[in-house]
Amino acid sequence: METIKKIDKLKKSLIGKREGTIGFVPTMGYLHKGHEELIKKCKNENDTSVVSVFVNPIQFGKGEDFKEYPRDPKRDSDIMKNLGVDYLFCPEIKEIYPKGYKTYVNVKEFDKVLCGKKRINHFEGVATIVLKFINIISPDTIYFGKKDAQQLIIIKKMVNDLNLNTVVRSVDIKRDLNGLALSSRNTLLSESGKLSALKLSQSLMYVKEKILNGQLSEVKEIKDIIKRNISKEKGIDIEYIEVLSLKNLTELKKVDLNNTIIALAASVENVRLIDNLILGEI
Amino acid sequence: METIKKIDKLKKSLIGKREGTIGFVPTMGYLHKGHEELIKKCKNENDTSVVSVFVNPIQFGKGEDFKEYPRDPKRDSDIMKNLGVDYLFCPEIKEIYPKGYKTYVNVKEFDKVLCGKKRINHFEGVATIVLKFINIISPDTIYFGKKDAQQLIIIKKMVNDLNLNTVVRSVDIKRDLNGLALSSRNTLLSESGKLSALKLSQSLMYVKEKILNGQLSEVKEIKDIIKRNISKEKGIDIEYIEVLSLKNLTELKKVDLNNTIIALAASVENVRLIDNLILGEI
Repeated sequence: METIKKIDKLKKSLIGKREGTIGFVPTMGYLHKGHEELIKKCKNENDTSVVSVFVNPIQFGKGEDFKEYPRDPKRDSDIMKNLGVDYLFCPEIKEIYPKGYKTYVNVKEFDKVLCGKKRINHFEGVATIVLKFINIISPDTIYFGKKDAQQLIIIKKMVNDLNLNTVVRSVDIKRDLNGLALSSRNTLLSESGKLSALKLSQSLMYVKEKILNGQLSEVKEIKDIIKRNISKEKGIDIEYIEVLSLKNLTELKKVDLNNTIIALAASVENVRLIDNLILGEI
Repeated sequence: METIKKIDKLKKSLIGKREGTIGFVPTMGYLHKGHEELIKKCKNENDTSVVSVFVNPIQFGKGEDFKEYPRDPKRDSDIMKNLGVDYLFCPEIKEIYPKGYKTYVNVKEFDKVLCGKKRINHFEGVATIVLKFINIISPDTIYFGKKDAQQLIIIKKMVNDLNLNTVVRSVDIKRDLNGLALSSRNTLLSESGKLSALKLSQSLMYVKEKILNGQLSEVKEIKDIIKRNISKEKGIDIEYIEVLSLKNLTELKKVDLNNTIIALAASVENVRLIDNLILGEI
């Protein structure tokens, strides 16, 4: 594995690799098994694999956890080496956003719902860094996990709208044995916090079964059930529970089994967690 | 010359041309000698030349002249054929902005000065269409005239900020024998309107000589002289006269001979005209 910090160097290194396919996994590091799934898929499907580790400052708002976001570059690098990654791209902030940087991309409306309601400019930051990475790497395929579903949907929309020559592929949420969606932020939770957080995935699984059985389809009812269920557990602060169209993130009244996302965000011990249930192809 | 209306067809046609260089000139059609200069330069410097004709609706504000913007596709096509253009790309609006289109790019601050003060979202529209064209065509070099200097500076900034693999080249303003900067909109002026409009370029030439002679350097004085000069002519409605840094479009107090743009916009017979004087490399 070659570790590269400079944009020009990475561009040059990849020139000779264009005969085959290039796959790319963007990450903010502190890798967990969910990232590993993405990297394995990328490795399996491409001749050359590039993984980035970059905690992107412009996607964190004021008062958010940019500084506290967990980092462990040595461990990340070891995991990637073991997985056979070809290039680790880990630029410094000033390499990506030099003095006087001014250009930002927005996927309008898509960025104003769910996490975008509270996290102003978050998806502008996400879309901008991914667009820059796509331009630097020109990957045939870029990989995202379904846990950050809104991110995935926004990037797919951006790639399509901007006529980029990259395919966006998604990988299912990886969960621990109890069902908790894996996240780098989980390491900030105490053991009791992790137990509380289980209510999130459990509530989603509960309504999933009822929906698939045909017992539940009204959005209002779904939201109420999830809310009641989570509220039983003390110490969970719900930010939102939403049921939206998977394709354009607009509100639904009834579940469509081929085009629905049930998404939620909540804080446990001041750690912001998200989870979702997707019905349909993304 | 092959005329292409579909994005996928153009992408496919260009696959076999990547061994050589591809040059691209984006236009809104109704070609004049200024466009011809751009196209000739593009032809001379590249193995394959692509020229687009697309009156981009999202760069026109409400009440602006999108509908009235002059169009003559047959004449444009003939001129391009004569100049030896390889591909004319003239997509319909729905090909570029299909239903549900949502993605926009902004070069912040750069888009709020000069023409951006009155033309809200104009440069968002310009940057977005150029980014889409760059992604569709992947040109080695893209060509812009210096008449739309703010556009040129914004596109250069976007290409640099977004790490695009395209070189932005600029071509000097083409003027008629009297000095009027060529523009597709000039055809909307009467003969007497054209005579009035000459005050714009004449005022710029007047201060240029004084600046180069060392007799004039204070920005306030330069703006006053141009304003007085233009105001002598009846029927010119000045929108702005600004003297800015060429690199980052911020205000100057004194002219820097290597980094200054003196830009103005004015209306004659309700036709909006712009002109500028550039000191330094762009």
